[in-house]
Amino acid sequence: MSQLSEDDLIARYFAPLAGPAALGLRDDAALLSPPAGCELVLTVDGLVANVHFFADDPPDAIAKKALRVNISDLAAKGARPLGFLLTLALPVDWRAEWLERFAQGLGADARRYGCPLLGGDTVSTPGPLTLSITAVGAVAAGRMVARTGVRAGDLFYVSGTIGDAALGLALRSGSSGGAGADEAFLLDRYLLPQPRLDLAPALRDCASGAMDVSDGLVGDLTKMARVSGVSAEIDVARVPLSPAAARLISAQPDLLQKAMTGGDDYEILASVPSDAAAAFEAAATAAGVPVTQIGVACTGVEAPTFRDRRGEPMHFPTGSYRHF
Amino acid sequence: MSQLSEDDLIARYFAPLAGPAALGLRDDAALLSPPAGCELVLTVDGLVANVHFFADDPPDAIAKKALRVNISDLAAKGARPLGFLLTLALPVDWRAEWLERFAQGLGADARRYGCPLLGGDTVSTPGPLTLSITAVGAVAAGRMVARTGVRAGDLFYVSGTIGDAALGLALRSGSSGGAGADEAFLLDRYLLPQPRLDLAPALRDCASGAMDVSDGLVGDLTKMARVSGVSAEIDVARVPLSPAAARLISAQPDLLQKAMTGGDDYEILASVPSDAAAAFEAAATAAGVPVTQIGVACTGVEAPTFRDRRGEPMHFPTGSYRHF
Repeated sequence: MSQLSEDDLIARYFAPLAGPAALGLRDDAALLSPPAGCELVLTVDGLVANVHFFADDPPDAIAKKALRVNISDLAAKGARPLGFLLTLALPVDWRAEWLERFAQGLGADARRYGCPLLGGDTVSTPGPLTLSITAVGAVAAGRMVARTGVRAGDLFYVSGTIGDAALGLALRSGSSGGAGADEAFLLDRYLLPQPRLDLAPALRDCASGAMDVSDGLVGDLTKMARVSGVSAEIDVARVPLSPAAARLISAQPDLLQKAMTGGDDYEILASVPSDAAAAFEAAATAAGVPVTQIGVACTGVEAPTFRDRRGEPMHFPTGSYRHF
Repeated sequence: MSQLSEDDLIARYFAPLAGPAALGLRDDAALLSPPAGCELVLTVDGLVANVHFFADDPPDAIAKKALRVNISDLAAKGARPLGFLLTLALPVDWRAEWLERFAQGLGADARRYGCPLLGGDTVSTPGPLTLSITAVGAVAAGRMVARTGVRAGDLFYVSGTIGDAALGLALRSGSSGGAGADEAFLLDRYLLPQPRLDLAPALRDCASGAMDVSDGLVGDLTKMARVSGVSAEIDVARVPLSPAAARLISAQPDLLQKAMTGGDDYEILASVPSDAAAAFEAAATAAGVPVTQIGVACTGVEAPTFRDRRGEPMHFPTGSYRHF
């Protein structure tokens, strides 16, 4: 595609996704007017082909996942999206059809989540396709939900169901099989996370702390407790599983560990003071987002204890996905 | 380095560079309070080893260049930096010593330009080292200098000298030689751009349009004229050259084309209404940034005309570096 300049490529594929702040993508920069009374929440995620997704995943799904993992971070902070910036490093063998489908997927989600393209940079790489998305959100001043806000006595909640994506990935990688009709559901949960943006107002109003679960529930909860200076007691039997995940784990009980530690959930892990629990549950229900209480924060510096249905501590040798 | 988790890596190398908005890099996101009365300017640049820099360039220089090319964009918009987010895709053979020097260089420039780290993501790649930096700046509301603002009759200025980096790159690549004592100067201009942040107030107060010269003066000026809906007459003999570049071009006249089209200058190209020219020159002088008038914008849709010292049109077959 050496006949296309970067400007051609921007005009053809990316200008249609741009919001007013992008200045038609004809400038060096985007110009954003912060909403009155708000602070800005900024988050960035990098994704590399065959590390964070499969190079032969559908291009629109790659684009959507890249944007959604960032929107998931904004949601966990109680913020609403204002827009995003994209760095796209295209491998030498990129094809116009691939890029067109990528841009279509990105555009569909930019509209869906009210998160337009603000700016970007497209470069060439001799390596694999690499993406970086910086998302910008707004939250009422002083109201961002920090990861460090958990206090002893707070209740831990998760949204949705845990482990689907990790099991979907395991199925895709061929290391587990026999899921039958559930396979498509779990694979879709891996391919297309559903950022819990609708939960953001409930988090902002009720939660003491929150993060999105990207590196596995066990590792992320451990991290959140540590940076908050608390410990926790978690009832693993309460961790919500989808029917598909429950069936797969019932058939292969060792997969519970994968579900609890595998990551890519993009559900919300929140701590809620006990006197705000009823309000949080009501607000979540009103927003159409299922939430489940899975345990409680307690004083102490030791790592959280995860207990099975008989109250015995469970041990998860891999606390969290390690990138290095 | 598989024994280091991403959290270890962040705590060891990147937390020291973080500003207050980064929340100690312990959260999913940064929290930025926009300065009162300001709009935010956002820009992103991706850099890939052996495409945008040499993999064996000094790690601190790679870090500094990655940050400076973004600060250069902010400067061109008349903005001051608030901070930056970094995506770092490390190749599998990364070494701690490399990363330490990279972080030191990044930290030195974060302090130098008042542009702290706000957040980031560090991932692993089977490909080459890849960086993406998103820089955030602030400008008084309504005062950002757009690339599209050039009007017929405006004077074109450039800061500093043009072509040094392209000639430095040519020397480094071995395609030109014999520069003797000038080689180090030109190479340094390639390795370490000097973003013209001190010129930002003069641009904000006096310029009708501006951009930084990253893809070559000829191509970037052509682009700026096109998006502004004007043409231009440029006097190539007025384009400021460093003594080192002038000596090299004098010895090898065909290198003038490389100087004019090669890119990596990270100088500012600005258009200034003629009645603001004296004020602009005075403000630039007061800021310690040399600026030189090189031509004038005029009505028309044709590409700018670049004339040699006899007034003859010059032709530059490669208008600008093409990434694809």
